[in-house]
Amino acid sequence: MTPLTLSSPSLNRLFFLTSRYSRSPFLRNFKFLPLIHRKLPHNHLLGARCEASSSFTAKSSKEIRKARAEAVVDEKLTALRQQFSKPGVGIDAYIIPSQDAHQLEITHWDVITDDSNENVLSEFIAECYARRAFISGFTGSAGTAVVTKDKAALWTDGRYFLQAEKQLNSSWTLMRAGNPGVPTASEWVADVLASGGRVGIDPFLFSADAAEELKEAIAKKNHELVYLYNVNLVDEIWKDSRPKPPSKQIRIHDLKYAGVDVASKLLSLRNAIMDAGASAIVISMLDEIAWVLNLRGSDVPHSPVMYSYLIVEVDQAQLFVDDSKVNEEVKDHLKNAGIELRPYDSILQEIDSLAARGAQLLMDPSTLNVAIISTYKSACEKYSSKPESKEKFTDVSSTKPSGIYMQSPISWSKAIKNDAELQGMKNSHLRDAAALAHFWAWLEEEVHKNENLTEVDVADRLLEFRSVQDGFMDTSFDTISGSGANGAIIHYKPEPESCSRVDPQKLFLLDSGAQYVDGTTDITRTAHFSEPSAREKECFTRVLQGHIALDQAVFPEGTPGFVLDGFARSSLWKIGLDYRHGTGHGVGAALNVHEGPQSISFRYGNMTPIQSGMIVSNEPGYYEDHSFGIRIENLLHVKDAETPNRFGGATYLGFEKLTFFPIQTKMVDVSLLSHAEIDWLNSYHAEVWEKVSPLLEGPTQQWLWNNTRPLAKP
Amino acid sequence: MTPLTLSSPSLNRLFFLTSRYSRSPFLRNFKFLPLIHRKLPHNHLLGARCEASSSFTAKSSKEIRKARAEAVVDEKLTALRQQFSKPGVGIDAYIIPSQDAHQLEITHWDVITDDSNENVLSEFIAECYARRAFISGFTGSAGTAVVTKDKAALWTDGRYFLQAEKQLNSSWTLMRAGNPGVPTASEWVADVLASGGRVGIDPFLFSADAAEELKEAIAKKNHELVYLYNVNLVDEIWKDSRPKPPSKQIRIHDLKYAGVDVASKLLSLRNAIMDAGASAIVISMLDEIAWVLNLRGSDVPHSPVMYSYLIVEVDQAQLFVDDSKVNEEVKDHLKNAGIELRPYDSILQEIDSLAARGAQLLMDPSTLNVAIISTYKSACEKYSSKPESKEKFTDVSSTKPSGIYMQSPISWSKAIKNDAELQGMKNSHLRDAAALAHFWAWLEEEVHKNENLTEVDVADRLLEFRSVQDGFMDTSFDTISGSGANGAIIHYKPEPESCSRVDPQKLFLLDSGAQYVDGTTDITRTAHFSEPSAREKECFTRVLQGHIALDQAVFPEGTPGFVLDGFARSSLWKIGLDYRHGTGHGVGAALNVHEGPQSISFRYGNMTPIQSGMIVSNEPGYYEDHSFGIRIENLLHVKDAETPNRFGGATYLGFEKLTFFPIQTKMVDVSLLSHAEIDWLNSYHAEVWEKVSPLLEGPTQQWLWNNTRPLAKP
Repeated sequence: MTPLTLSSPSLNRLFFLTSRYSRSPFLRNFKFLPLIHRKLPHNHLLGARCEASSSFTAKSSKEIRKARAEAVVDEKLTALRQQFSKPGVGIDAYIIPSQDAHQLEITHWDVITDDSNENVLSEFIAECYARRAFISGFTGSAGTAVVTKDKAALWTDGRYFLQAEKQLNSSWTLMRAGNPGVPTASEWVADVLASGGRVGIDPFLFSADAAEELKEAIAKKNHELVYLYNVNLVDEIWKDSRPKPPSKQIRIHDLKYAGVDVASKLLSLRNAIMDAGASAIVISMLDEIAWVLNLRGSDVPHSPVMYSYLIVEVDQAQLFVDDSKVNEEVKDHLKNAGIELRPYDSILQEIDSLAARGAQLLMDPSTLNVAIISTYKSACEKYSSKPESKEKFTDVSSTKPSGIYMQSPISWSKAIKNDAELQGMKNSHLRDAAALAHFWAWLEEEVHKNENLTEVDVADRLLEFRSVQDGFMDTSFDTISGSGANGAIIHYKPEPESCSRVDPQKLFLLDSGAQYVDGTTDITRTAHFSEPSAREKECFTRVLQGHIALDQAVFPEGTPGFVLDGFARSSLWKIGLDYRHGTGHGVGAALNVHEGPQSISFRYGNMTPIQSGMIVSNEPGYYEDHSFGIRIENLLHVKDAETPNRFGGATYLGFEKLTFFPIQTKMVDVSLLSHAEIDWLNSYHAEVWEKVSPLLEGPTQQWLWNNTRPLAKP
Repeated sequence: MTPLTLSSPSLNRLFFLTSRYSRSPFLRNFKFLPLIHRKLPHNHLLGARCEASSSFTAKSSKEIRKARAEAVVDEKLTALRQQFSKPGVGIDAYIIPSQDAHQLEITHWDVITDDSNENVLSEFIAECYARRAFISGFTGSAGTAVVTKDKAALWTDGRYFLQAEKQLNSSWTLMRAGNPGVPTASEWVADVLASGGRVGIDPFLFSADAAEELKEAIAKKNHELVYLYNVNLVDEIWKDSRPKPPSKQIRIHDLKYAGVDVASKLLSLRNAIMDAGASAIVISMLDEIAWVLNLRGSDVPHSPVMYSYLIVEVDQAQLFVDDSKVNEEVKDHLKNAGIELRPYDSILQEIDSLAARGAQLLMDPSTLNVAIISTYKSACEKYSSKPESKEKFTDVSSTKPSGIYMQSPISWSKAIKNDAELQGMKNSHLRDAAALAHFWAWLEEEVHKNENLTEVDVADRLLEFRSVQDGFMDTSFDTISGSGANGAIIHYKPEPESCSRVDPQKLFLLDSGAQYVDGTTDITRTAHFSEPSAREKECFTRVLQGHIALDQAVFPEGTPGFVLDGFARSSLWKIGLDYRHGTGHGVGAALNVHEGPQSISFRYGNMTPIQSGMIVSNEPGYYEDHSFGIRIENLLHVKDAETPNRFGGATYLGFEKLTFFPIQTKMVDVSLLSHAEIDWLNSYHAEVWEKVSPLLEGPTQQWLWNNTRPLAKP
């Protein structure tokens, strides 16, 4: 799956670069040089605008005329606006983001709007939390809605402009994020409100960092940000038709896959808390909670997590989760680890109570919602101002607690896989390869026989092949199955009513993955069912060269991922080609298919060093608009490279492949490859045969044999 | 010459990384991950410390005993301390940096202290400004002295520990910057003074950024930073023995080399000033002044610049320079460009006067000294508080001027060479190659005949060969001539009394360059005069592979240099080798051999995109301590690459070589090279022969012929 980029907080400080300089000989010479980032991350609320402009016209005049002609009364908007003036609300605008209370990565894993911008977050939330989709009608994965008393606007990025145009009714203005002259949501709301406006948000849906930035942005125009703790205004009007929150049972992630028991993880976590000078930690990231507790859930499609919060203190721990999801076995598991159960909705009460007890909380403001952080801060003020409570604080620390704000220590721990996690990943990858062999052997025949075979049919059939594998739980993301031009849409999701047939005369790109009980997979292969053109072969071969260059990289410990990103691009760059997404993302072990903190990307803000034990994807690509898309993706495990030297005493790192599946040699222009690159491909295919063939038999094994034959050197 | 790194201001915000993680399985897992820079830039005053420590013992107990036994009365220190209590001074400590009032790059081109840290600034100042060397006796190029009423300490980095131990007397404490537990100078001075201390500096010797950081650092311990505008305390005690300031004549840099006349440069600069919302600019960077005015000086060794300040207003301009250096021709040149002459020492008066006139000054706080910026700020306050002067400000701007702080626009303009500058660089490189051919042909014979031939003899002889070339002016830096183990000392400077002989059985590294009237050169070659070992050949070949990889890189516009740095290292990394310096630095056109803003370095803070028209060095290396050093350096010109595609409409860039001189094929292990790499070397050598042989004859031409023969493919 194409990678997203984790942006570091320092990125927020960067300025915007216009990458072209005037060619007028003197004016060019005197352009100021901003020291900045090559590509600027963007989010709808606060992202950079392409051009400063005070004109906020985001629809063409034709569209505006159309809107006037068709103006409808939007009952949802009317109902929402009625909420604005209710007692305890009193707002002039309401912002509805895409996120739920946990998946705040959307501010963290930046939504990128490149020139044509296809590289975007698509993590997943439960239906009942899809409030932005409900209120606006726009169902794309990325978007922010802002409703004032007389206006309603929706921001999304270039992938979704067409879809949003179709789905939004005329009461809504579509804001094409990233286009010149289009304001950010915070700029827009600050501009359209009369001075002194009150902008409401559900504080559970904004990270503390995001809320703080929003607050500052609108304060410039003298508006106030209002946290509505007790009510989500969309839920109020959604009422009975709102889907029920997910209630699937939580399961234990077996120690043989987890590798380390909960008690040991808690011990380490408590050491980390104390090292940081804190007395407790509040965790809202669902994959972090699942990882620490060796539990898995089914609340969210593709991600085996459960809606919950976790508070770990030095001498106790509490899991905030809907009791109905917790069976007796899980209760025992938690009890054994000294973890008490609390209702999901009681999190703020406990935060208040922690402040009352003088707890010094470790919190990650980039992921923790502002409802929690703000409640804690207020409570600290409240209790510290009462003389009688002062005594309590001295138990923990001589100073008044005010929180310790830093990256979650679990993010790093989770990224460094232990032996059991790694073994599970390896095992599940081989079973996944067996399923894929069945699938591709079937597809290569079927595509010539069935001229009605669609991209969705193919994805469905792939799921069938996977679902019979041991330990299969779910897909790890929506399968990207793209024939011809659809392959050039980086995050393409075929829909039954609109998808294409799989054309045997065109390139076919398939990016898919699965959740198994022991591991998570993510693989992309691109294949041609007939005769590829010379152009397709040249592009494929250069993508493959980039894939090989990254696979074979050796580098000293401490190297951030972006240093390696260029290795995967240099063969494409030589002929003036490139791709508009990062080269690699972290992957969880039987957890989220996208995880941080590492990445391998051309966005240079993520300084996280690639470390032994991490897992990353290696997925360079090339996309020719309206024609074809190519991506070759394996997952890699970072391990110590046994170099003959260790300059400076450093450990050198390299990669071990987790994915073993043929790369279509028909697509390779052998004349472009060096001998070393041909050796790489041949030895990879030999390894694929060796590892995967024992899981196959008959024609499928024969298919694998045919597809792992060595290339001859020219 | 090995490159230094330009650090961006944002680098100052980075935290410190300890690159090794505890291997205890759980503790390791819970280390916090700082999002930080791989290597931290360091300056003695404010750099990061390796470990927090309240123990400031920087000498071993043995050294301390030695110091006590030998304690001497240091008359210079006594005299300096007597100055502390004079009227108008009244300080408790005085900080003496290495810089003069212009070469403030030392805070900009960071002094790096790596583990063993040899990659350091060695720009050049006039003797009369070498105050730190005078007061301390330590003559190394990098160091900061701090003197209190009863203590004296000198900070330098690992290259100079041995030299400083020898040169400092027992009144001084040597602070080994970068070693664990060694405080920075600002930490130390803040710690040793009683609360409320007054720390004096000469504000001409600190950039505004550096002074601000120092001020903040000592304010934490309640000390005050005191600017002594009117007196440099070291000069006061240096008195008559202080060398006179340089007074060599300024010369005009011919338009045929400069390419653009002064009037045009001023026009562009004035546009840039107005674009920035300013009405004038103050420039103190000597190479910027030389570049804008098409003048060259001889005040500083190796750099063709003159001590001066330049103020450009929208309708006038003033050059502050010692009148005795300016002959009639130069006076006419300046007059024609509308530039008036002012005494060098009157700069602060003019700054005050500018503020009085309401000028809005554009200033670069990373390079401009704090004397100027502070004078301007105070003057703005002074004049704006007088009601009668308010009127004046409205002429320029409706708001009170307070300065516009940004990177100098000239830095960028100077980096993008015009056609004439480029042609001068190309021509001077060919003459330089002819001189080098004479030199190497001589050396290869001499080294076997003369067993007393020293590294200094060799450098002297090289200078002779260069000095007979047309347009030769100076060396562009101190020649690094290192035999055997000395080659492993990255910034080795052989001294007559201590240098080694050139051993015909060892590798010899020669890094040198020249200033010609039309261009600046910088080239490193490493050669063996007998039979290299397999180890030496392997290392040389991998350095060469890195050199080729960078030379052949093609990349989209907007790519910062650090993205390319890894290309030059990857072949070394494969066997666990690396080098502790950047891969490339900018080079001036008949100007400083080190210039910004671009760099190609593993220090990832410099986001400057590599742009068409820039010149960079390509100089990967490998250094085996106590054994040998290898570096292969060419200068490259960045130009548009004529790629068959232009993905995303981007221009793709590549390199054109400026340096044409043989690379010793005897050192190459051909079995390690790809066919493409062998082709590169052979075609380079063919080009060297074609371009340089016409400048040679007889045995020297024969030498070039012998050394440009193609390698056969294995």
